[in-house]
Amino acid sequence: MARMSRQRGRAARRREGQGESRAGVGAPYVKRRIGYFDFLEEEGLVRLERQADWLIQEIGLEFRDDPEALRIWREAGADVSETRVRAPAELVRGLCQTAPSEFTQVARNPARSVVIGGTNQVFVPVYGPPFVRDLDAGRRYGSIDDFEKLVKLTYMLPGLHHGGFVTCEPCDVPVSKRHLDMLYIHMRFSDKPHLGAITEKSRAEDSVAMARILHGDEIFESACVIMGNVNTNSPLLVDKVVTEAIRTYCGAGQGIVVAPFILAGAMGPVLTAGSIAQALAEAMMCCAFSQLVRPGAPFVLGNFLSSMSLKSGAPTFGMPEPVISNYVIGQLARRLSLPLRCGGSLTASKIADAQAAYESADSMHSTALAGANFVLHAAGWLEGGLCTGFEKLVMDADRLEAYARILEGLAVDDDALARDAYGEVAPAGHFLGCGHTMRHYQTAFFEPALSDSENVESWEERGAQDMQQRAYARWNRLLADYEEPALETARLEALEDFIARRKSELPDMWY
Amino acid sequence: MARMSRQRGRAARRREGQGESRAGVGAPYVKRRIGYFDFLEEEGLVRLERQADWLIQEIGLEFRDDPEALRIWREAGADVSETRVRAPAELVRGLCQTAPSEFTQVARNPARSVVIGGTNQVFVPVYGPPFVRDLDAGRRYGSIDDFEKLVKLTYMLPGLHHGGFVTCEPCDVPVSKRHLDMLYIHMRFSDKPHLGAITEKSRAEDSVAMARILHGDEIFESACVIMGNVNTNSPLLVDKVVTEAIRTYCGAGQGIVVAPFILAGAMGPVLTAGSIAQALAEAMMCCAFSQLVRPGAPFVLGNFLSSMSLKSGAPTFGMPEPVISNYVIGQLARRLSLPLRCGGSLTASKIADAQAAYESADSMHSTALAGANFVLHAAGWLEGGLCTGFEKLVMDADRLEAYARILEGLAVDDDALARDAYGEVAPAGHFLGCGHTMRHYQTAFFEPALSDSENVESWEERGAQDMQQRAYARWNRLLADYEEPALETARLEALEDFIARRKSELPDMWY
Repeated sequence: MARMSRQRGRAARRREGQGESRAGVGAPYVKRRIGYFDFLEEEGLVRLERQADWLIQEIGLEFRDDPEALRIWREAGADVSETRVRAPAELVRGLCQTAPSEFTQVARNPARSVVIGGTNQVFVPVYGPPFVRDLDAGRRYGSIDDFEKLVKLTYMLPGLHHGGFVTCEPCDVPVSKRHLDMLYIHMRFSDKPHLGAITEKSRAEDSVAMARILHGDEIFESACVIMGNVNTNSPLLVDKVVTEAIRTYCGAGQGIVVAPFILAGAMGPVLTAGSIAQALAEAMMCCAFSQLVRPGAPFVLGNFLSSMSLKSGAPTFGMPEPVISNYVIGQLARRLSLPLRCGGSLTASKIADAQAAYESADSMHSTALAGANFVLHAAGWLEGGLCTGFEKLVMDADRLEAYARILEGLAVDDDALARDAYGEVAPAGHFLGCGHTMRHYQTAFFEPALSDSENVESWEERGAQDMQQRAYARWNRLLADYEEPALETARLEALEDFIARRKSELPDMWY
Repeated sequence: MARMSRQRGRAARRREGQGESRAGVGAPYVKRRIGYFDFLEEEGLVRLERQADWLIQEIGLEFRDDPEALRIWREAGADVSETRVRAPAELVRGLCQTAPSEFTQVARNPARSVVIGGTNQVFVPVYGPPFVRDLDAGRRYGSIDDFEKLVKLTYMLPGLHHGGFVTCEPCDVPVSKRHLDMLYIHMRFSDKPHLGAITEKSRAEDSVAMARILHGDEIFESACVIMGNVNTNSPLLVDKVVTEAIRTYCGAGQGIVVAPFILAGAMGPVLTAGSIAQALAEAMMCCAFSQLVRPGAPFVLGNFLSSMSLKSGAPTFGMPEPVISNYVIGQLARRLSLPLRCGGSLTASKIADAQAAYESADSMHSTALAGANFVLHAAGWLEGGLCTGFEKLVMDADRLEAYARILEGLAVDDDALARDAYGEVAPAGHFLGCGHTMRHYQTAFFEPALSDSENVESWEERGAQDMQQRAYARWNRLLADYEEPALETARLEALEDFIARRKSELPDMWY
């Protein structure tokens, strides 16, 4: 654990209780106050639901490599034939109703706990890239050092409410031990909530065990403090990574996010409606399974739909088909009263150029307006998810604050309508110095950190920087300003003891 | 008229009737098939409408420098005190109802005529910048040569449905004669519909006269073939540029777009709701005026709301406040049954970087979804509207095609649901070669011209180009492929004769 010297630990612990951390202060999550967008009419929604029901009842899903999962389904009354599970739609829909429509994920700093579901929206950074890129060092495999920086940046950025988990893969740490270091870094260097490992049952169990140490038995037993995030193997295959993660997290009273990842035309029908319905069927079956494991377990219905380039077969992002899918799955999740994960700031671009921004903005605008409750990949995603961009992370996070402002809605009270101003300002006059403007100008407008609105001469005088260059300066400044959030010494040491023991038990494995 | 040699004219005329032009073939405009977004609840909408009515009745608008406008208002029963016009809200609302909820602007190529209003959406390039920028020559004053290139590009780009007018200011032509060359270039080098001049009454009259020559008396008398686009002088001032443009265009049975341009905190209240209501009041009064001039005249209700940087007082774009304004004015325009102009691909960035793309996408996504019927500034805008970007034009236009696809909605018929595919593809299989995929893969996905979805190795092999560089190559290729659309020699000569006569009558004026 390269970066976890006792010395740095002690230095940090000396700062314990020295008041507010310097992390960007913002609302812990977005409380949406605007209406929803009815992209698809009722008839289309019903057809999608019927198709999902048909897939569940008639085609069924494969549940492989986990006999316990099949036992659970059989006991619930499903039709289990070898590894194929078909279930009456009413059974599945009934089970989905036992999952909470909203729940709290408690953070170690209670002020940063997030409410997931309902009209609340939580923004979470990119998950999974093996590579990282920044303007200085270029593209490379992610390291544990990069990972720690990304966790610290996520902690500092007010646009992000949740730490996620694999903000990049720390490829210089053995796969078998990596999750321990990653959990430690999230738990120590940030006080925002985060996810745990899922790649193997024992790693999920380690995650849950460490969350219990961090939060203490009492909170752990009574609240959701950690969640796993897993993908089904579309089409219609749920392997043991998924069922074991559900059994481990939900079995311990914790939460799970299950997202079918569908590249339409490969893992689902090439037409968007077909892939949406299949994703719904897969996610509903996983929700039902989670409720069989533990009724009332926190479950987030995931959706990840990607389109494809005709030229190369490569996945594309920020395109009309997944934008439409975001809006429609938002409608479908609300009809199920289930918290939704979808979308994010997605792009196929290799760098944080205009392509990355156009695609990320259209993807994220639709994600935000669709009402997605848990937005993984909301910042930092590049290259179809293969690479985390340091500049991209802070650029996206800046825009996330703008979306949060949109989701707050529009005040139309007497003060907003400014009738008093028209007593001061005659037609053809100006509002610059009037009382109404003076009362409100400091809070009237969203103030972005990275958008330059100077005139061209001032901008040229300051070096004619593009947004990436300003973002590079910003993330370096944020890291320079970083201060570790206080954590009880006893908990930190207990975590370190746990990790030391587990590491001694585990072999070094690199794949 | 530097670029209008008889020789080039003749060469082009030889191509007359040689079949399809090579301009990008696309739908002439977007027929929206999706639902609307009810951002604001009924109560808020009613409060905004009441505020607009209060402004119209109690505060009133200044109508200056055009006694004929005051005469028209007085005759209609308004309370006219010096230049202040107050009118009963019922009078104004009643007049607004005589404007068509949708109308056709006929193009010289009937296949390119656009329907403005209702569920139709028309995308139009940037209007007004004195500067242009491209990757090769950098930033400079726009010239008539730049203008001609931009008109040709607009003609070639399938994402743009309408030519607009001042795609850049041709600053090397005297202000007094500029409009004649600009109209000629639109009329000759493109067969998409376009706007006319408004800066002075005689220029508006020249525009209408040239439109009559281009289309012939019969079509001109029976259809809208040209429109003017004007801004009120917010707050609450309508000067003679506006009233004369309305009188000239609508008086001749043509159309008018009136957009209050409000930098909130300067030309309107600093809080968004107040500025939206003021913009609504100004636009409704101008609509009413247009209907007094000619009942049933085509009128587009405009809205242009900008936010402000606290640091510098500079206008900002793509920010939450104008995004919200787009959604809300969309609701308000539908309640009035009036065609709406709002938004566009707006940014404060000086270059076509990620800032430009994030801001343009959020601005344009909301514009498109808000149902804006006539979207000026949909492509090419940089630097708060001071500069037209050649790369930005083609980049935005590429994204416009994606928005058009979103607005088409989602097919949820039996074929889209792909039940037959599940007979071929078992759970855990793949859809790559199945019949359903083979039937649809060529049309299933939007295919962008400028987004790169290659893997990083292929992208690096091809020079690691960012989107701007690809856009530079694309607009140069489009211009190289450009072919003039056929136009009857007699009409072209009549236009040239008109211009020659008018130029002989007008002095050279440079401001």
